[in-house]
Amino acid sequence: MNKDKFIEQLKSMGAEVDDLLDKILPPGDARPEELHRAMRYSVFAGGKRLRPFLVLQGAFVGGLHYRQALPLAAGAELIHVSSLVHDDLPCMDDDDLRRGKPTNHKVFGEAMALLCGDALIMLGFDAAAANAEIEGVKAIRALAALRELHCGVGYAGMLSGQAIDISFTASTATPETLDYIHRHKTGSFITYALRAGAVLSGLAGEDLDALTGYGNDMGLAFQITDDILDIVGDPVLLGKSIGSDQRQDKATYPSLYGLDQAKRRVADLAESGHAHLERFGTQADSLHALLDYIVERDR
Amino acid sequence: MNKDKFIEQLKSMGAEVDDLLDKILPPGDARPEELHRAMRYSVFAGGKRLRPFLVLQGAFVGGLHYRQALPLAAGAELIHVSSLVHDDLPCMDDDDLRRGKPTNHKVFGEAMALLCGDALIMLGFDAAAANAEIEGVKAIRALAALRELHCGVGYAGMLSGQAIDISFTASTATPETLDYIHRHKTGSFITYALRAGAVLSGLAGEDLDALTGYGNDMGLAFQITDDILDIVGDPVLLGKSIGSDQRQDKATYPSLYGLDQAKRRVADLAESGHAHLERFGTQADSLHALLDYIVERDR
Repeated sequence: MNKDKFIEQLKSMGAEVDDLLDKILPPGDARPEELHRAMRYSVFAGGKRLRPFLVLQGAFVGGLHYRQALPLAAGAELIHVSSLVHDDLPCMDDDDLRRGKPTNHKVFGEAMALLCGDALIMLGFDAAAANAEIEGVKAIRALAALRELHCGVGYAGMLSGQAIDISFTASTATPETLDYIHRHKTGSFITYALRAGAVLSGLAGEDLDALTGYGNDMGLAFQITDDILDIVGDPVLLGKSIGSDQRQDKATYPSLYGLDQAKRRVADLAESGHAHLERFGTQADSLHALLDYIVERDR
Repeated sequence: MNKDKFIEQLKSMGAEVDDLLDKILPPGDARPEELHRAMRYSVFAGGKRLRPFLVLQGAFVGGLHYRQALPLAAGAELIHVSSLVHDDLPCMDDDDLRRGKPTNHKVFGEAMALLCGDALIMLGFDAAAANAEIEGVKAIRALAALRELHCGVGYAGMLSGQAIDISFTASTATPETLDYIHRHKTGSFITYALRAGAVLSGLAGEDLDALTGYGNDMGLAFQITDDILDIVGDPVLLGKSIGSDQRQDKATYPSLYGLDQAKRRVADLAESGHAHLERFGTQADSLHALLDYIVERDR
């Protein structure tokens, strides 16, 4: 699959997820309006819908039609957005801008942004549970998929990486700590989004292991590329200012190993990721293309 | 059921919930230690385990053994504790003490308290999903119960009440707004904890409606009693200072209608609540006793 066709697919699947998110989210003119507007504001602030895409592709590789995993995919995105809203709060990263727009608490206030993030987490799990109502999806598999999602985002996943991240800076972090942060903060959600979709479709055993291997490689490549872009990226393309990791003395792969070594690591991860997908043949075309896209992206 | 026997049952069921919570929560000596300790700190800070009790009683009224609903009950408590941790944050109520102990962010810092609350919400929904693994519980009912829980706590439930609450004070709130806050902030979680347990057991139709009616009456009686105790309660028994509603100019039932009228309303609600339970006979003995306890409590 070439890059243009891949981007087209990413966009069209993202649009379907957006349609469902619009149906799932409470209307902005229903009480309590401020909370509902805050939820919609951040959900529709223009994300790439990467995690939903992974859920859908995981389900597809396992034999479902991708549309049968849409509620689970929407759930993953809601939880992702919640983490952005809470991350931007003054007690965390204290960011004023996100994707070129004022952050949630800058518009709605800190207390509302806090509640908004909570509401998005909860609605995310509710959406995952609602996937059981799709024809051809077994209730027991929807439950298993929801629990995979929790592995990716909860105390053993994303939140674990964030918790370690706030305790260390570049000057105090060891390479091992940095690796832990990378694997958990972004990587584990990426891997488990894929696994959640796959488990929804009934994928198991060595197939699930291979998909997990791909997810781990891709997630780490994604994170290191993010850190590289924070140094050499174009603020206009990125929609945010660069250099924030350095200003906050954050531990990142480039800050610890240098830019060249970081780029080489990304190339190695890409090679390993593609190899994991071989067993799935053409069913994994989109995941191959996604890995190329992640590695080559400039935004 | 007399008061002593009821309190004994409340305590012993609470102890079983605590045992499960101890198993579900990640160990405090596993990485990231701070996050895990923060989670355990607030979960084991000495709550009454009212919401888990309601889940268990809802399941019992519907014909399950109460132990078959323990994971769902633990999930409800985790979500409840998350709301306390987030409520106490400086951008919300800015409380230093909770149940006589320093609040979560006073011990672990604001950022960690924020992540801790998020982790507890997520683990709460995961525990609800895990209830499907209990023998004799259908997967489809575990999913339905999880979604009931979401109705009680999400954007249409508890969070909705909190969102309205932060926008109004006693001087700006109308009686209708006050009623909205009461029904949602505490009441809806109480009602839906009961419903979640009942739905797990397969209860439906008029039986579920009656249980919902009881829950609504009991929840509102609980909240008004809380507000009364904030005025006339004993700080030692309560384990917290009183008068915080008045200091913050919070809209409460007593502040709007006076103390006598508030007490009369509690008595009316109790009568109505007992009436809703009649159809369940002796199966509802504990719920009758709970209502008496709520109304007469001094802490």
